[in-house]
Amino acid sequence: MNYQVDLNSDLGESFGAYTIGQDEQVLEFVSSANVACGYHAGDYNVMDKTVKLAKEKGVGIGAHPGFPDLAGFGRRKMEMTPGEVHRLVTYQIGAIEAFCRVHQVSLQHVKPHGALFNIASVDTKTAEAIAEAVYDVNPSLILFGLAGGELITAGKRLGLRCANEVFADRTYLPDGTLTPRSNPEALIHSTEEAVERVIKMITKKQTEALDGTVIDLEADTICVHGDKPEALEFVKHVRKVFSENNITVQPIGEWK
Amino acid sequence: MNYQVDLNSDLGESFGAYTIGQDEQVLEFVSSANVACGYHAGDYNVMDKTVKLAKEKGVGIGAHPGFPDLAGFGRRKMEMTPGEVHRLVTYQIGAIEAFCRVHQVSLQHVKPHGALFNIASVDTKTAEAIAEAVYDVNPSLILFGLAGGELITAGKRLGLRCANEVFADRTYLPDGTLTPRSNPEALIHSTEEAVERVIKMITKKQTEALDGTVIDLEADTICVHGDKPEALEFVKHVRKVFSENNITVQPIGEWK
Amino acid sequence: MNYQVDLNSDLGESFGAYTIGQDEQVLEFVSSANVACGYHAGDYNVMDKTVKLAKEKGVGIGAHPGFPDLAGFGRRKMEMTPGEVHRLVTYQIGAIEAFCRVHQVSLQHVKPHGALFNIASVDTKTAEAIAEAVYDVNPSLILFGLAGGELITAGKRLGLRCANEVFADRTYLPDGTLTPRSNPEALIHSTEEAVERVIKMITKKQTEALDGTVIDLEADTICVHGDKPEALEFVKHVRKVFSENNITVQPIGEWK
Amino acid sequence: MNYQVDLNSDLGESFGAYTIGQDEQVLEFVSSANVACGYHAGDYNVMDKTVKLAKEKGVGIGAHPGFPDLAGFGRRKMEMTPGEVHRLVTYQIGAIEAFCRVHQVSLQHVKPHGALFNIASVDTKTAEAIAEAVYDVNPSLILFGLAGGELITAGKRLGLRCANEVFADRTYLPDGTLTPRSNPEALIHSTEEAVERVIKMITKKQTEALDGTVIDLEADTICVHGDKPEALEFVKHVRKVFSENNITVQPIGEWK
Repeated sequence: MNYQVDLNSDLGESFGAYTIGQDEQVLEFVSSANVACGYHAGDYNVMDKTVKLAKEKGVGIGAHPGFPDLAGFGRRKMEMTPGEVHRLVTYQIGAIEAFCRVHQVSLQHVKPHGALFNIASVDTKTAEAIAEAVYDVNPSLILFGLAGGELITAGKRLGLRCANEVFADRTYLPDGTLTPRSNPEALIHSTEEAVERVIKMITKKQTEALDGTVIDLEADTICVHGDKPEALEFVKHVRKVFSENNITVQPIGEWK
Repeated sequence: MNYQVDLNSDLGESFGAYTIGQDEQVLEFVSSANVACGYHAGDYNVMDKTVKLAKEKGVGIGAHPGFPDLAGFGRRKMEMTPGEVHRLVTYQIGAIEAFCRVHQVSLQHVKPHGALFNIASVDTKTAEAIAEAVYDVNPSLILFGLAGGELITAGKRLGLRCANEVFADRTYLPDGTLTPRSNPEALIHSTEEAVERVIKMITKKQTEALDGTVIDLEADTICVHGDKPEALEFVKHVRKVFSENNITVQPIGEWK
Repeated sequence: MNYQVDLNSDLGESFGAYTIGQDEQVLEFVSSANVACGYHAGDYNVMDKTVKLAKEKGVGIGAHPGFPDLAGFGRRKMEMTPGEVHRLVTYQIGAIEAFCRVHQVSLQHVKPHGALFNIASVDTKTAEAIAEAVYDVNPSLILFGLAGGELITAGKRLGLRCANEVFADRTYLPDGTLTPRSNPEALIHSTEEAVERVIKMITKKQTEALDGTVIDLEADTICVHGDKPEALEFVKHVRKVFSENNITVQPIGEWK
Repeated sequence: MNYQVDLNSDLGESFGAYTIGQDEQVLEFVSSANVACGYHAGDYNVMDKTVKLAKEKGVGIGAHPGFPDLAGFGRRKMEMTPGEVHRLVTYQIGAIEAFCRVHQVSLQHVKPHGALFNIASVDTKTAEAIAEAVYDVNPSLILFGLAGGELITAGKRLGLRCANEVFADRTYLPDGTLTPRSNPEALIHSTEEAVERVIKMITKKQTEALDGTVIDLEADTICVHGDKPEALEFVKHVRKVFSENNITVQPIGEWK
């Protein structure tokens, strides 16, 4: 049997004289790029360059809106009403979509970043605000959210195409949320184990929580990192094993 | 004979807890609103509210991109390559256009703000960068620039619809540029004189420079201010005299 | 019997082209000024002007450090470790103290702003981090905190001089904290009632909570607002009634 | 004969999640650190860490104030009145000095950064504004400026201790200013040549301009970079050759 999956990575996170990530190399191996929009990371120069590069590589381009907190890299919770979250996301989708128009390529998806992603995975109102912003700006966009989380639920309710996202290097709690990073067992350090788990998610639509509970989930897109040399090695390895298991990696907009 | 003209004003300049301008009242009297995009002024909350309000009043909505300098309100020159100016403007047009989509109204125009406007009036490369950004993001947008200045020239070269802007309360130099504010004769303080000059610009397509030189110019749109009570009185007066002179005020997108 | 009390107000909150407050008038009536330090409000131009003005009026000058969130005016909680709070406060005290040196006047006190103040009133670790920053930068500074709150406790433990702050226009819960603004009874709208309550706090060292519980508290300094014309009227009235009740208003640094 | 010289480097330029430089290694080889103050680079966390580290290594600590332009890393000219420059510098000196007090070490010097340094080298009013800010905040601070430039002149006029700074890897114009980077001959690529030139500056108080003109100059402190591995190799080499030539490297505050 053949399977299709999307590999996504956070890109375009450099800012001014500050460089983060190895975007050019990562773009060789992923099928979707979440491009920072100038609030938690990125700037207009970086956005332009990243969109151009992603288009050249045939990688699907996504808005990666985050909290307005460059100093905290969008990883700190900020108190916002759902209305403000709607406007926060609207602004950032618009900004990145303008660069897509300049480079004559379509925006494929929206994936909230960091603390905003985490809140939207469990908080219904925040999830709805994000889904509505996506719907209001461009209902053909695909919404990325934690597999089975509130954001996916909110997106589906509006009729948006949604992509269930799974994490290769993270463990899960019995309720399907990620084990918090504060827990020493949050990360999977063995490449073999990580790859094996992902393959099971794709082919069996299941994974095991830390306590052994079996969780049913969809794995439309897999989040991989590219900011460290090891991370890049990991992604290369994933792609190799995928091809051995009849799993094709393609931008989600081409098959979902 | 009947004439048509557009009245534009800079709006949506409030930020967070900081309020500037009397936007609701000004929107009763102008036909086009230049909405700040979060760089030199404005934020996503203010942008959303301003777009909504302008639509309700039937006022044409424009992007008002400026330098990324909230502390200087976009009035300080910043050194930027034409490429960076292109990206700066692209970003801001995209951001405001997203709010237009949310409120199901079209973006009508783009007018650069403050120091960026001034540079674009005389510097060919900056003017071209702005015009190209507008063209690349959405070639149906109308480009506002100083009547007869470099920005209008650059816009026309690309085939953009352009609006020559004149200033009711400012004097002109023989070359058609505004007298710098550092010159004590930069401002016209008499309402009667200001109105008379504008009517001549609209009906005769001429004005007189400080030294008496007659300047030929088009007056498609007139910039008025709304941040002070006197300014609002001035705009009301202008509209009254216009109606007595068969000059109809309408959003430029409806007749240009 | 004679009493002494300090009247403090948040000042220097303007930013760039944005003006908030009526600082010059307020400085006529208060004895201590909490000067914003450029993070949640204020900028170096405003700080310089405010310090200069406060010195001229004989008003005690305080650092008013807040979260780095101009868009939210420092009113939104941000997640920070105690170590980061220490550094956040250190930075801002240093910045304002430099302007005091330029104007050859001593910095009198430190009062955290908005969300930082609220957290420090109840969270021991945040309170200790702030108190330690004050102590480490300049142990002769007076620390302002909610009367009887965690910040006062933390300050006293380090041997800092502390000023218990009370609020004239706010009601209290039985535990001595302010009734949250979300509660419709949070604010006292009657000037007479507000003044009467404050006088009781100063002379009897007691106030009544919403449910009638009698709370013991010290009232070293009273927070008043000056951003609206009514607020200014209120402060004038307070000073008049104080003088009728033998309550002298003086900068806390002169008598505590 | 024995000589003394100071080696300075720009440090503490990381920001939030963004890392620039190899500060720990560089601190092994320089005698003075110019610490970014949160405007063009750096933040309160980085400042704290850098001051602590510099103190541990016995390296003199300096304020490195720059324009408020994180996106441009302080390298873009901004239009400012001398009064605003005074306040800009005052603020940043105060901020870094607070961290020095926390770590119980004295602030040694002030060196403006990037575009502000360049303007202050040739523009008298900007130079005077900076020198006055230093004098007003703390007249015992040492002012770093381009050898023989306007900043040194302004500092000496006020009676400040001044350090003439020379650049090992840059060529000079006949008037003693640095060859602009736009000139292909701006940089010296040969390590041997660079070291030889610096030694001549220290021992003979002379250097040769691009056109062969002999320039008299003082070389109190030498600016070295540490952001690239080659740069670090260069500094190590410089120190080795210095010790062979009886040139002692010491923080300028200890011998000037």
